[in-house]
Amino acid sequence: MKLHALSILLGGSIVGDGDAEVTCCASLSKAQKGAIVFIEHPKYLPSLQECKASAVIVPPDIHSHLPSIVVKNPALVFAKALDILHPPREAGAGTHPSASVHSSATIGAGCHLGAAASIGAKSVVGANTVIHPSVSIGEDVTIGSDCIIYPNAVVYPGTIIGNRTILHAGCVIGGDGFKYVVDGNRGRVKVRHIGIVRIGDGVEIGANSCIDRAALDETVIGNGVKIDNLVQIGHNCTIGQNTVIAGSCGISGSVRIGANCILGGQVGVADHVSITDNVIIAAKSGVTGDLDKPGVYSGMPAHQVSQWRKEMAAFARGPETLKRLSKLEKGERP
Amino acid sequence: MKLHALSILLGGSIVGDGDAEVTCCASLSKAQKGAIVFIEHPKYLPSLQECKASAVIVPPDIHSHLPSIVVKNPALVFAKALDILHPPREAGAGTHPSASVHSSATIGAGCHLGAAASIGAKSVVGANTVIHPSVSIGEDVTIGSDCIIYPNAVVYPGTIIGNRTILHAGCVIGGDGFKYVVDGNRGRVKVRHIGIVRIGDGVEIGANSCIDRAALDETVIGNGVKIDNLVQIGHNCTIGQNTVIAGSCGISGSVRIGANCILGGQVGVADHVSITDNVIIAAKSGVTGDLDKPGVYSGMPAHQVSQWRKEMAAFARGPETLKRLSKLEKGERP
Amino acid sequence: MKLHALSILLGGSIVGDGDAEVTCCASLSKAQKGAIVFIEHPKYLPSLQECKASAVIVPPDIHSHLPSIVVKNPALVFAKALDILHPPREAGAGTHPSASVHSSATIGAGCHLGAAASIGAKSVVGANTVIHPSVSIGEDVTIGSDCIIYPNAVVYPGTIIGNRTILHAGCVIGGDGFKYVVDGNRGRVKVRHIGIVRIGDGVEIGANSCIDRAALDETVIGNGVKIDNLVQIGHNCTIGQNTVIAGSCGISGSVRIGANCILGGQVGVADHVSITDNVIIAAKSGVTGDLDKPGVYSGMPAHQVSQWRKEMAAFARGPETLKRLSKLEKGERP
Repeated sequence: MKLHALSILLGGSIVGDGDAEVTCCASLSKAQKGAIVFIEHPKYLPSLQECKASAVIVPPDIHSHLPSIVVKNPALVFAKALDILHPPREAGAGTHPSASVHSSATIGAGCHLGAAASIGAKSVVGANTVIHPSVSIGEDVTIGSDCIIYPNAVVYPGTIIGNRTILHAGCVIGGDGFKYVVDGNRGRVKVRHIGIVRIGDGVEIGANSCIDRAALDETVIGNGVKIDNLVQIGHNCTIGQNTVIAGSCGISGSVRIGANCILGGQVGVADHVSITDNVIIAAKSGVTGDLDKPGVYSGMPAHQVSQWRKEMAAFARGPETLKRLSKLEKGERP
Repeated sequence: MKLHALSILLGGSIVGDGDAEVTCCASLSKAQKGAIVFIEHPKYLPSLQECKASAVIVPPDIHSHLPSIVVKNPALVFAKALDILHPPREAGAGTHPSASVHSSATIGAGCHLGAAASIGAKSVVGANTVIHPSVSIGEDVTIGSDCIIYPNAVVYPGTIIGNRTILHAGCVIGGDGFKYVVDGNRGRVKVRHIGIVRIGDGVEIGANSCIDRAALDETVIGNGVKIDNLVQIGHNCTIGQNTVIAGSCGISGSVRIGANCILGGQVGVADHVSITDNVIIAAKSGVTGDLDKPGVYSGMPAHQVSQWRKEMAAFARGPETLKRLSKLEKGERP
Repeated sequence: MKLHALSILLGGSIVGDGDAEVTCCASLSKAQKGAIVFIEHPKYLPSLQECKASAVIVPPDIHSHLPSIVVKNPALVFAKALDILHPPREAGAGTHPSASVHSSATIGAGCHLGAAASIGAKSVVGANTVIHPSVSIGEDVTIGSDCIIYPNAVVYPGTIIGNRTILHAGCVIGGDGFKYVVDGNRGRVKVRHIGIVRIGDGVEIGANSCIDRAALDETVIGNGVKIDNLVQIGHNCTIGQNTVIAGSCGISGSVRIGANCILGGQVGVADHVSITDNVIIAAKSGVTGDLDKPGVYSGMPAHQVSQWRKEMAAFARGPETLKRLSKLEKGERP
């Protein structure tokens, strides 16, 4: 594709040779002839100087020797270039002969069902959804259109999933919540879960992540939520739209997280906690109480990051503090 | 079902209309006509007032306008009502044509084997056990009766599982332990594991959790143990009966945990640690040494929670402590 | 096998009856007649005294009543004995009738393909590699020889895997990285990942662990790397050869870890961090900045373990410190 043609699709203005031929995206360090790269900061200009790419996407304040598309947000525009120059592999409509589809299930037009995938009774899959090998979809499941469900993902009965949602390999949607009641004689009695998981549109669930279904009602994952790999979401949780949860987080049962929040990796949230919109929680923090105000939180228990930083600074000075205290006790001056 | 008939099954006495028709369980907020709900505390009476349920399970000290079953432990009795009004889906006995059962395996009466499930040589599955799609059972595995193994769970060769045990989707039972010996020339040499995992009766293993088999003997999960999702249990561990382990915990190798313990989420336990019976460990704690006395522990390293709370209070006052110290050093009085 | 014959295979010298018959390895506590055990320290001599084994592997300074093989490194030699006396189950070459192999895939001589496994278009599997049931291999994947891929593991398209590498059950190799760019109107836009994962020779990836593929280039797992269960490795990471990563660690994107490092369980590493060779990081630590010098690190943020220990000691004395401070403020002497 000529750089000029690409710029029409991407927006932005061209500086240099608009006839440069561009066939793929690449990194600065690995790019070869035909590649387009991007930079956002002048500090990468020396790397760009040595780069073998044929073109570059740059912000207005950067001038390159390479044919350039000049845009306000190079990272965003580069993401669009990736979509244009690297279209996804077409799975192709059709059902693999080794897939098992219950006779009462409904599979939309254009769907792909991979080898050894199974779809339970009365489940409905929307148009153009791709279901990879060894995926297991239970009964009474509803999946929207244009979804991708990667290999070995498991969807328990009753789950409802919107459109354009991606489930990565091995994730488990709708397992029993972790709830028992103690019966004097019999020990712990399992509480049967009759609720479901409801996942919105444009959601992404990471590989091997788990979302438990509600005890009675619904565990809700809002539109646009992005969940990374190996995350646990307990029963009855509600995750507000466009919230982002990084890898290895553990969210206990009945937690409410608002919209547009960001949770760093390995964060834990105690059960029944409520977190308002626009909250950012630093990696490894433990949230043990409600967070009612937008802001950045850190620590265990998680509290305002500015305060936590002061506490951590004092913690690091702890050994010195003990020495200073001993001196004072001996009546010595510092 | 008439409320009166239900109360005979559940126990408890009826207040109000025993002829009220009850067809399902529900939450206070979503209940409709025909539903039965429960409350345990008077603070929920206003919600109950607006609730559209047909009946309620209450403790003796709460009086509702709805037809009521009065019992000592409403949560426990409601769990029983769930079992009665929402019986599990019957998987139905039989083997899906796409399942693969080795000719030397023995499958008990009434078992269900789902699509693309596989059972290895000489394995034995007890009566009425349900094995969901794409489950992989290795060779020489023994599984008891009335178990449920959800989709894509993996059971390595030699594993022994009791009766009425539930393995959730994607869990991995019996993988190689993480053990290497260093050989000067060859780097790390893998230590072959010839042990097994032995799981008792009435156990529940969460989705995508992993339990490694022993190097030589047995990794043992006692009767009634409940393990949540995404938990790692290392080789040679022994988990005592009725112990509960919450999500995302990591238990290193050769750990012994006693009976009736509770581990909060994201707890870590170092290798070879021994924890006695009736120990509770707060979420996110790290256990680095033996815990010989029942009690509640927290922190990293985990120690008595009362002491840990004082330390955390002092930690939070760290910045103030530094200021007070500086004042004293300058000879100022507070 | 006679002990004498075994000692020829293992090295070491025999003390006692070289004609003792040895058929298996065992632990000190469970050994029966015919078993060989090992001890490394005199403190186990009382246990050895009661042990029913037929022979023992000991270091030069330990003298046992049992027929013995005397070697410098009993643990290493015992590992070799395990390999000799407990050879792995032979999976047997061949493709299960329910496996699905794309017509354009190439499967090497001696490979085993289990039930319901699937191999995508143009993928290449080397000789003698064992692929267990319900494994899903995408398109354009290259797998070396003598690998073992346990049940339900998932390998995304384009992945390259060396020889003698083991993927445990349920692990996910090559999933999309967790990267979005914000578009004012449309919210988060997913960044298509066109890179791959490249895994070296002699690597082991634990059960249900996840390794994301690079955005543009390669996520690289070096030769001899050992990764435990439930570990997350983000996109664009490079893990140096022979590094060991324990269970439940979370490594963010674009992290570089050197060779011969050891990460304890539940460690977290922030994105774009660089860690040099020969670094040890204690369990539960959080690495938030580069570690440029070999050594042992602990804490959050991770720093030199000697300093961290002093800080933790001061932390534990925090309540006492507050009391001492109050006394001084009141003008009292200790």
